[in-house]
Amino acid sequence: MFELAPQLEADTVLIGKTPLNRILLMNDSRFPWLILVPERREITEPFDLSDHDQSLLWQESMVVGKMMKSFFNAQKLNIAALGNQVSQLHIHHIARFRADAAWPHPVWGAGVAEPYERDALRKRLFSLQEALSQQLTFEFPQAS
Amino acid sequence: MFELAPQLEADTVLIGKTPLNRILLMNDSRFPWLILVPERREITEPFDLSDHDQSLLWQESMVVGKMMKSFFNAQKLNIAALGNQVSQLHIHHIARFRADAAWPHPVWGAGVAEPYERDALRKRLFSLQEALSQQLTFEFPQAS
Repeated sequence: MFELAPQLEADTVLIGKTPLNRILLMNDSRFPWLILVPERREITEPFDLSDHDQSLLWQESMVVGKMMKSFFNAQKLNIAALGNQVSQLHIHHIARFRADAAWPHPVWGAGVAEPYERDALRKRLFSLQEALSQQLTFEFPQAS
Repeated sequence: MFELAPQLEADTVLIGKTPLNRILLMNDSRFPWLILVPERREITEPFDLSDHDQSLLWQESMVVGKMMKSFFNAQKLNIAALGNQVSQLHIHHIARFRADAAWPHPVWGAGVAEPYERDALRKRLFSLQEALSQQLTFEFPQAS
């Protein structure tokens, strides 16, 4: 059974699921930052997925990236599979702005995360779920 | 006509071309680092490519990443489209090692590039061209 890596579990909030991916929101209000995690066991590189899943991963990644660019009116998207610290395959999608806290540098290692306030988090999740469900086969999180 | 961004031209050496991409070697001997640049004008985001080119981009990216993992016996691949400083779409592929100069952090902004020595560069190019031409439709650089 697929289990999310503990560090990803700790740093993010579940937005929902697509046919391949769990879609997570990084709990750092400084950057609009979504992470796609294919629900496949013991995969660390995108090219270790089956051809079918690779194709699905990049299709879903491109839909998410395009949605984020428009939704946040971003100046640039950063899309990256790094995995030096958390080896479970996960693809970062970060909306970037020339006025953001790390520009023009990458966001990793830049300062300290600022978690969303409760209401802001709820609104952000709701609006992202609405936007994603219009673009992708999308499953909302189960109430817990 | 497609023209490579001046910063990419300055920092890299041409390895060759595929049906979609120019494949460049970052001239920094600290990290095995290839960059794919789709030869399409005025594209800054991968999702701004046509569907056909998006599919080709990720297919070629996955072949290059897999080749690099095996060729360099890498512990991890980092694959990223950032473009905060050079907006022309380009996809980094970096072979990472737990003993490298930036681990476990990303390579961007880590220290100062160490250009290859002439013979090492020639050998590296030759062996990468050989490896890539076995995996992809690959065009060698024209003698200049």
